[in-house]
Amino acid sequence: MNPHVLAIPGSLIREVAAKKTPTAIDLGLGEPSLLPNPAHFEHAMRYVAQHGVKYTQNAGDPALREAIARHYDYPGMHDAENVCVTTGSQEAMYVTLKTLLDPATDELLVVEPTFPSYVKMAKLEGVAVRGVTMSEADDFAIDAERIIAAIGERTRAIVICSPNNPTGRVIRRGEAEKLVRALEARGGEPIRLIHDEIYREQSFIEDEAYLAELYPHTIVTNSVSKSNALTGLRLGWIIGPAEFIREAIKAHAWVTSCADTFAQQVALHVFTTLGGVGEQVSWYREQRAGVVDALERGGVRFIRPEGSFYACMRLPDGVKSLDAALELIERHDVLAIPGGAFGASFDAWLRLSWVAPIERVREGIDRIARYIESRTAHAPVR
Amino acid sequence: MNPHVLAIPGSLIREVAAKKTPTAIDLGLGEPSLLPNPAHFEHAMRYVAQHGVKYTQNAGDPALREAIARHYDYPGMHDAENVCVTTGSQEAMYVTLKTLLDPATDELLVVEPTFPSYVKMAKLEGVAVRGVTMSEADDFAIDAERIIAAIGERTRAIVICSPNNPTGRVIRRGEAEKLVRALEARGGEPIRLIHDEIYREQSFIEDEAYLAELYPHTIVTNSVSKSNALTGLRLGWIIGPAEFIREAIKAHAWVTSCADTFAQQVALHVFTTLGGVGEQVSWYREQRAGVVDALERGGVRFIRPEGSFYACMRLPDGVKSLDAALELIERHDVLAIPGGAFGASFDAWLRLSWVAPIERVREGIDRIARYIESRTAHAPVR
Repeated sequence: MNPHVLAIPGSLIREVAAKKTPTAIDLGLGEPSLLPNPAHFEHAMRYVAQHGVKYTQNAGDPALREAIARHYDYPGMHDAENVCVTTGSQEAMYVTLKTLLDPATDELLVVEPTFPSYVKMAKLEGVAVRGVTMSEADDFAIDAERIIAAIGERTRAIVICSPNNPTGRVIRRGEAEKLVRALEARGGEPIRLIHDEIYREQSFIEDEAYLAELYPHTIVTNSVSKSNALTGLRLGWIIGPAEFIREAIKAHAWVTSCADTFAQQVALHVFTTLGGVGEQVSWYREQRAGVVDALERGGVRFIRPEGSFYACMRLPDGVKSLDAALELIERHDVLAIPGGAFGASFDAWLRLSWVAPIERVREGIDRIARYIESRTAHAPVR
Repeated sequence: MNPHVLAIPGSLIREVAAKKTPTAIDLGLGEPSLLPNPAHFEHAMRYVAQHGVKYTQNAGDPALREAIARHYDYPGMHDAENVCVTTGSQEAMYVTLKTLLDPATDELLVVEPTFPSYVKMAKLEGVAVRGVTMSEADDFAIDAERIIAAIGERTRAIVICSPNNPTGRVIRRGEAEKLVRALEARGGEPIRLIHDEIYREQSFIEDEAYLAELYPHTIVTNSVSKSNALTGLRLGWIIGPAEFIREAIKAHAWVTSCADTFAQQVALHVFTTLGGVGEQVSWYREQRAGVVDALERGGVRFIRPEGSFYACMRLPDGVKSLDAALELIERHDVLAIPGGAFGASFDAWLRLSWVAPIERVREGIDRIARYIESRTAHAPVR
C-alpha cells in the first residue's frame, strides 16, 4: 500500500466529537446550521426533468464557469477559462496543490494556525511543506512580515485561508499589499499565492483583502458550502490564470471526471439569482454581534472574530486543548474543538463554532468561560 | 508545476467528438441516452427539505454504505465497513490506485485494450504501469493464461474492466477461476484484483464472473452512472476488505471529503427500491438484440457484445482508427470513437456506443459498414 496514505493519522476532531451526547451544546460543527434556499434545488429539479443528469465538460458547465468568473471579477480572471468547477473546495485545493507543486523540488508554505487539510494534502502527495506561525501575542493576525521572512529557496506557493479557520482573522489590505510588493520584488519564477476564500461571505471587517485583486499569480479556491449552507452538495471551484486552469483541469479530469451536474445547476441558480451568493450574510452579522457580546461578558481571553463562524478562547497556561475539550464534553456537556487539531502553536486554545441558536451559543460560551476560570484559579496539573 | 500533470496528453476522443455536426449520428457517447427515474430525485428532494444538505461521514451515509454492501453481498464484504462512497467510479478508481500502490516499488497490470483512465491515473501518481493485451484473433476475450503470464516481480494489482469498455467482452467464470487459482498458488503478499464493474447491469451472457465472489483480495469499483442513467450525478463506491477500505477512506477524505449528500440520497432510493438497480436492464437487452442484428447485416467483422453498451467494428488492414473516425464524421456524418484511444493494440478498430434510438444506431452501423467495404475494395493508402 501507499506509505503516504498509511501515514495519515486519525482525526483529533473526530475523537472529541464522538463523545457528544444528545443534550450537548454543540460548538464543534464546521458547517452552517441554516437550511439552504429551496429555490436553488427547484431550479435543478426542473433542469433534470428536462435534460437528465449527463456529464458536463470536465471543467464544468460553461454557463456556471462564466457566472462564477463574472461574479468575482478578478483582474485577468473574468472568463469561463479562468474557472474549474470541482467536488467542493476540498477537491479544489487538492487539485490546486497537485497541479502546482513538483514533489521532487517544490515546497509549500502554509500560514498557521489554520485548517490542517493543506498540510495533510501536501504530505499525501509527498510534497515538502512548512508552516509559518502568526504571533499569539497579536492574536494570530495575518502578518506579511512573518510570511515574507519565512519564504525559502524552494517555496513555490503560499496558502492563506482568510477569513481563517480557526482563528477568525482576516488578512487586511495593507498587509496583503506589503506581501505582494515583496513577492513582486523577487526575481525569477513567481511564487503563487493560494487564497482559500471559503468563508468569504462571513467577513465582518471593512478592509479585508482579496489577494487575486492584488497579485496576478493568485489561485482562489471556494465553494457554495459556507455561503449558502450547502456543505454536503460538494460544489466548489478554482479561479486562476488560464494557463494554470488548463493544467488543473487535466488533473481534475482523472481525479473525479467532473462535478455533479445537479449540484452545478443548484450553484448556477445561486450565481444567477440577484443577491444569491450573499443571501445568508445578514444572519451571520447578527449572530456574530451576539457572540462578541457573550465573549465579552465571559471575561476570559478570546480572539475577536473578524470573519468565519468561529471564535477562539484561550486556555490557562499549562492546560492542553485536548484535555480541556474532553473535560468540557464529559463534565460540562459542551463540545468545542481542541486548538491542537490546528497545530502545536494553537494548543492553548479552543475553537468554538457559533452556528447553533444564539441562546445555546451564549450558554456554551458561559460554561467554557467558567471552566477556564476554574482551571486558572487552581495550580495547573502539569 | 507537477511534471506528471504537465505530461497528461490531450484527449483523442475529444478531438474527434469536437467535429460532431447537429445532424450527425452519434455513436460516440459513453453515457446512457435514457432519462433517469424521477422517483429517486423526488426522494432526495424530500430529504433535503427536511435535513438540508449537510456533510455525511467521509465514507458516506452509513445507510447507503450498508445498502450497497447488502445488495452485492460479496463474501466477507457484507457490511457498511466494506464500502466507501465516492464522487463517481472515477474517484473510486483514483482512490483505490492511490491507496493500494506505492510509487516507489509497485507496479499495476492493466488488462487491455480498455478504458485509458487506469493507465493515466497510474502515470499521474508516478506508479509503474504495464498493459497485458488480449488476443485480437480471439476478439480480445479476457484470457486468464495471458494475464497470469504477464504478472511480474513488482505486480501488486491487476485491473480488469468487465464488461469491458471498449471491447464489450466479459470475463467468464472458468477464466476467472483459472486466474484466481494461479494467484492463490503464489506465496507471499497477495496480488489484488481490481474489478471495474461499471457496466455490470449491461451484461448479456450467462456465465459472467464477479471476481469478488471468487477471490477475497478483490476490490470492486462501480457507480449508479450506467445502470440508472445517472452519469452526471457522480455517485460511485469502492467495495473491498475492511482493512483496505479503512485506508482508502483516509485518502478519499483529503481528495474530496465526502460524496454529495443529495446524490447519496438519490442512490439510497435506487438501492432501497425493489429492482431499482436493474430498472433499465430490459431496455438494454432489447437494444442489444437490434444492434447484433444490424452488425450481422453489415457484413463486416465486429465483436459480438457480451456486455457494456458498445460494439466494435474492424477496419481494413492499414487503415488507422483516427483517420477512419475523422473521415466518418467529415464525409459520412457519423461519430464513432477511434480504437487507438484505447491503446495501440486496438488501433484497427472503431468503438460504437449504441444508446441512440435503434433506427439511428442501425443507420450508423450501415454507414460504417459501407465505409469499411469501400476502403477494403481499394488498396490501403499506407
